[in-house]
Amino acid sequence: MKIALAQLNYHIGNFEANTQKITEHIQLAKAKGADLVVFAELAICGYPPRDFLEFDEFIVLCEDAVQEIAKYCTDIACIVGLPIKNEVLQGKDLFNAAYFIEAGKVKAVVKKALLPTYDVFDEYRYFEPATQFSCIEFQGKKIALTICEDLWNINDNPLYVSNPMDELIKEQPDVMINIAASPFSYTHDDERIQVLADNAKKYKLPVFYVNQVGAQTEIIFDGGSLVFDADGEMKAEMKYFEEDLQVFDLDEVESVRNKYPKSERLTDIEQIHDALVLGIKDYFRKSGFSKAVLGLSGGIDSAVVCALACRALGSENVMAVLMPSKFSSDHSVQDALDLVNNIDCMHEIVPIKEVAEAFDHILAPAFKGLPFNLTEENIQARIRGIINMAMSNKFGYILLNTSNKSECAVGYGTLYGDMCGAIGVIGDVYKMQVFELAKYINKEREIIPVNTIVKPPSAELRPDQKDSDSLPEYEILDKILYQHIEKKQGSKAIIAQGFDEALVQRILKMVNIAEFKRYQTPPILRVSPKAFGMGRRMPIVGKYMV
Amino acid sequence: MKIALAQLNYHIGNFEANTQKITEHIQLAKAKGADLVVFAELAICGYPPRDFLEFDEFIVLCEDAVQEIAKYCTDIACIVGLPIKNEVLQGKDLFNAAYFIEAGKVKAVVKKALLPTYDVFDEYRYFEPATQFSCIEFQGKKIALTICEDLWNINDNPLYVSNPMDELIKEQPDVMINIAASPFSYTHDDERIQVLADNAKKYKLPVFYVNQVGAQTEIIFDGGSLVFDADGEMKAEMKYFEEDLQVFDLDEVESVRNKYPKSERLTDIEQIHDALVLGIKDYFRKSGFSKAVLGLSGGIDSAVVCALACRALGSENVMAVLMPSKFSSDHSVQDALDLVNNIDCMHEIVPIKEVAEAFDHILAPAFKGLPFNLTEENIQARIRGIINMAMSNKFGYILLNTSNKSECAVGYGTLYGDMCGAIGVIGDVYKMQVFELAKYINKEREIIPVNTIVKPPSAELRPDQKDSDSLPEYEILDKILYQHIEKKQGSKAIIAQGFDEALVQRILKMVNIAEFKRYQTPPILRVSPKAFGMGRRMPIVGKYMV
Repeated sequence: MKIALAQLNYHIGNFEANTQKITEHIQLAKAKGADLVVFAELAICGYPPRDFLEFDEFIVLCEDAVQEIAKYCTDIACIVGLPIKNEVLQGKDLFNAAYFIEAGKVKAVVKKALLPTYDVFDEYRYFEPATQFSCIEFQGKKIALTICEDLWNINDNPLYVSNPMDELIKEQPDVMINIAASPFSYTHDDERIQVLADNAKKYKLPVFYVNQVGAQTEIIFDGGSLVFDADGEMKAEMKYFEEDLQVFDLDEVESVRNKYPKSERLTDIEQIHDALVLGIKDYFRKSGFSKAVLGLSGGIDSAVVCALACRALGSENVMAVLMPSKFSSDHSVQDALDLVNNIDCMHEIVPIKEVAEAFDHILAPAFKGLPFNLTEENIQARIRGIINMAMSNKFGYILLNTSNKSECAVGYGTLYGDMCGAIGVIGDVYKMQVFELAKYINKEREIIPVNTIVKPPSAELRPDQKDSDSLPEYEILDKILYQHIEKKQGSKAIIAQGFDEALVQRILKMVNIAEFKRYQTPPILRVSPKAFGMGRRMPIVGKYMV
Repeated sequence: MKIALAQLNYHIGNFEANTQKITEHIQLAKAKGADLVVFAELAICGYPPRDFLEFDEFIVLCEDAVQEIAKYCTDIACIVGLPIKNEVLQGKDLFNAAYFIEAGKVKAVVKKALLPTYDVFDEYRYFEPATQFSCIEFQGKKIALTICEDLWNINDNPLYVSNPMDELIKEQPDVMINIAASPFSYTHDDERIQVLADNAKKYKLPVFYVNQVGAQTEIIFDGGSLVFDADGEMKAEMKYFEEDLQVFDLDEVESVRNKYPKSERLTDIEQIHDALVLGIKDYFRKSGFSKAVLGLSGGIDSAVVCALACRALGSENVMAVLMPSKFSSDHSVQDALDLVNNIDCMHEIVPIKEVAEAFDHILAPAFKGLPFNLTEENIQARIRGIINMAMSNKFGYILLNTSNKSECAVGYGTLYGDMCGAIGVIGDVYKMQVFELAKYINKEREIIPVNTIVKPPSAELRPDQKDSDSLPEYEILDKILYQHIEKKQGSKAIIAQGFDEALVQRILKMVNIAEFKRYQTPPILRVSPKAFGMGRRMPIVGKYMV
C-alpha cells in the first residue's frame, strides 16, 4: 500500500481555497501512484477555527466541502480531518473527526478522544471526546487512525485517564496513521519525534504522521511530517515551514533502511527565524495585505523585525519610519539609515519634536507646572504610535509591532505607543535571543549594523536613558523570566535556584502588574512553549505575585 | 440543622483578604446560631483564578489558607471551595473541590464533575472531572454537596454525559447544597432559579445555593443566593450585587412557607446598571486605585459612563476631559458641561486643534498632498487617546473606555483612540440599551442632559458627520447584532428571519473584519450572555463571513 502524506498550508474558514488545495493534492497523489492520501487534522476548515465552530452554518460548510472532495476520491482513498456534528443528544455538539473516503463515499468516521485544553488549545470548549474505537480496513490492511493528541498520552504523568491506541491495538492493526495540527515551538520538533517513536515501539507498528504547515495569526505550524518503522526508527522527515507531499510504500518502510531523505535539522535560532518569516508572510497573505510599516529606532528590536519583514514580504514592500525626538542620539538615526541602505526598503523620516511641543502646550493648563516625568516619555512613544498608524491608514500598510518578550514581560513599553501593531513579530523572543537572531541574520553579510548590535539598549525617551537604569542586565532578566513564564515557577522556586531574592520578587511583580498592558497588545507570533497571548491566561485584577 | 449561606466578595489571589473575610463570617454565622456555614466555589482564591492555577506555589497558598480557616471551625462546620491537587498520576493535576470542615479538621472532600468549558469558562484547562460521589453525614443528616455546574445538566440537550446528583441520590440524602461561582448576565438570574427549582423537584430535596458576589475584572458575580424547598418552591432569595449572610433552619424550610423575605426582582436595565456600578467599583478597589478619567464628548456613551463612574467612585473622584476639535459642534461642549454641572465631577477642557495641525504639518512630506480621509479622522481620535492617557499617567487616574457594544461589534471606533482604556464600561451594552440606561439614570432628576439623549449620534470627526451615514439605524443594527453575537446565527439564519440580505451580509462582514480591533481592546464588563472578550474567541486571520 502506498501512502501519500500531504502537508499543506490551510486558511481558517476559507473553504474555497482549502477545498481546492485538497482536491489538487488528491490528484497529485494519484499521479504519484498513491493508494491513500492523508491530510491533516481539521484540514477542511483550518486549525484552530475557534468559535467559528459555534455557528451551525460553519459546520454545514465543512460537510459541503467534504462532498466536493469525495468526488475526487476515485482510484484513491483519502483521510481528511473536519468537525462533525454529535448526533447523540448528550454531550458537546461536535466531534473533532476524520473521514476515511473511498470510491467517492465516506466509509469510516474516526473521532478524537483526547482533547487538548491547555496553553493555546481549547478543544473541550467545542468537542465531545470519543469513547469508541475501531480500525479501518483498506486493501487488506488494518489502519489504526488517530487524531493528534490521541497519541500523546504515553509519558509518565499522562494528562488523560484513557488511551485510544490501547483500545485500537486489540484489533491487531498493521499501521498507525496520525493526523495532526501540532503548532511549532522551538522545543516541539524533538518532543514530537520522541512521542511518535515511543508509540511505534510501544505498539510495534509503523507510524505515518502528517502535520499542517503555515501560520494562522499567532499560531505557526511547522510541518515536519514523519514516518517511523515498527522499531521506532525515523524513516522520513518531511520539510519544515513549507508545503510538501511525499509517497511512502508501507511494505518498504518496514524493510528498507534510510530510503527516504530526512530534512536537515535546524538550530533553535534557525527555526525561530524561519517560523517568524513564515508567520509574517502568512499573516499578510491570509488577510489580503502585502505591505508593512514599522517604526525604526536604530535599536536592535526594530532592526531585526525590519529584516524579517523584508525577507517575508520583499524589501520593496516594507516602509521603515524614522521618528527622531530631541532625545534621540545621532547614532540612532544613522544606525537606522544604515539598515535601510543595507536592506533597501522604503523609509520616511518624521521628526516628532513639533507635535511633542504642541502636546506640552495644550496640556500645560491641566498639568499646572508639574515636572517632566513618565507622562511625557509616554507621550513621545504614543506620538510615534499615531504616526505609524497614520502611515498604515493612509497607504494600507500593516503595522508590525517590534516589542520583544523581555520587555512585554516586565511592561517596559508604552501601551498605545510602541505596543501598537497588528501582529507582534518578536514578542515571543527574549532580548538575548533577539541578539542571536540579529547575528544569524548577518550570517552572510552585514544587514543589521554592527553598532545596533553592540550599543547598550535604550528607549531614548529622556536624556542619556539606558534600559539598564530600570532593568537588570538582560542575561539575568531573561533567565528569571524563562523560569517564571516557560517553567511556571513562582518566586520561592526561582530563588531556590540561586537568584537574588529581592530581584526575583521585583521582576515577578513587574510581570504580573503588566498583565493589563499585555491584554491589549497585538497577537504575538508564537515560537516558544509559552507565549504571551491566548496560551497564557492570567487574571488582570488579581493579587498574587504583585 | 441551621445552615448559614455566606455570599461574599472575594479577590482573586488575595489570600490574606479572602481568609480574613471567611474567618470573620464563620464567627458571624456562629454568633447567629448556625451549625454549618457555606462559602462559595473557589472562595479561598477567588474565581476565576485562571493560569495562577498552574503555579504550584498558588495551590500551596490555598492549602495554607484552609489550615488557618479550619482553626475557626469549632462549634460550627464549614463548607468552602478551593483547588486541590490530584494525587493520582493520571489526569489533570488539580480538582475543583470543596472541603467539609468540622471540629477544626477537613472531614470530607467533594470534587466537581462537570467542568464548564465554554463562553468565559475554562475549567477543563485546569481540572480533572470527579468520577466518584458520596454524601456528607452531619448531625444525623446526609448532605448531597455539589459544585456549581454539577447541578446544571438537567435540560433536554445536556452538555455532559453524566450527572452527579443521579449518583448522590442513591445514598438518599436529606438536602442538596450547591456552592457556585455563577457570573451575572441579565438573563442568568431567571435561568438559575429555574435550574435549581428543577433539581429540587427532580430529586425531591430542598436546595441551598450560595453564589459569589463582586467583580473580577470583566466578570461580575451578582450574588442572589437561593433556598428552595423539596417541592421546588423558592423560599429565599438573597441580596443582589451585595454581600449577604443569612441563616436558614433546614426543618423550617421544609415546613414553613414564605418565612424568609425574597429580594425585589429587578428589570434587565436595573440589573445592568447595578452590575456596571459594581464592576467599576471593584475594578478600582481591587487594583488599588480610586480616581477615574474619561473623555467626555457630549454624546450619550461617555455621558452614561461618566454617570456610572460617579455612582461607583463618587463624583469627586471622576475627571471628565473635554477635547473639542474644529469639527465639534457647539452643543457638544455645552452638553458635556451641562453633565459636569449636573453631576459635579472634575473636568478639564483641552482643545486638540493645535496638536492636530502639528500632525498635519509633520506628516505632510510623507503624505504628499493626499486628501483628508479616515487617516485624519483617526488622528483626532488618537490625539484624544494620548490626552486621556497623559491625564492618567500624570495624576494616577484610571482611564475608562466608553465604547458601546454596537460600535465594538462593527468596528466603529479608532484603535488606540477612543478604544483606549483600562476597562470597557458599556462595551457589552448595545446602543439602544445605552439610551435605556440613560433614561434610567435620569429617573429621579436630569443628570444626563436631554439634548445628549435626543440628538442624532455622531463621532464628529469630519464636518456634519452622523453615525447613520455609515451605519444602519441602531434599532435594526442592534437586532441583527444580537442574533449574530448572542444567538450565534450566521447570515442565512438571520436573513431567514426577514432582515435585508445585503444589510445582514454587510453587517456580519463588518463584525468579523473588526476582530483585529477587538483583540486589542480593554476587558469589557460582562452583562450579557455573550460579551466580547474572553468569552468570545474568534480567529483574526480567518476567511468566514468576511
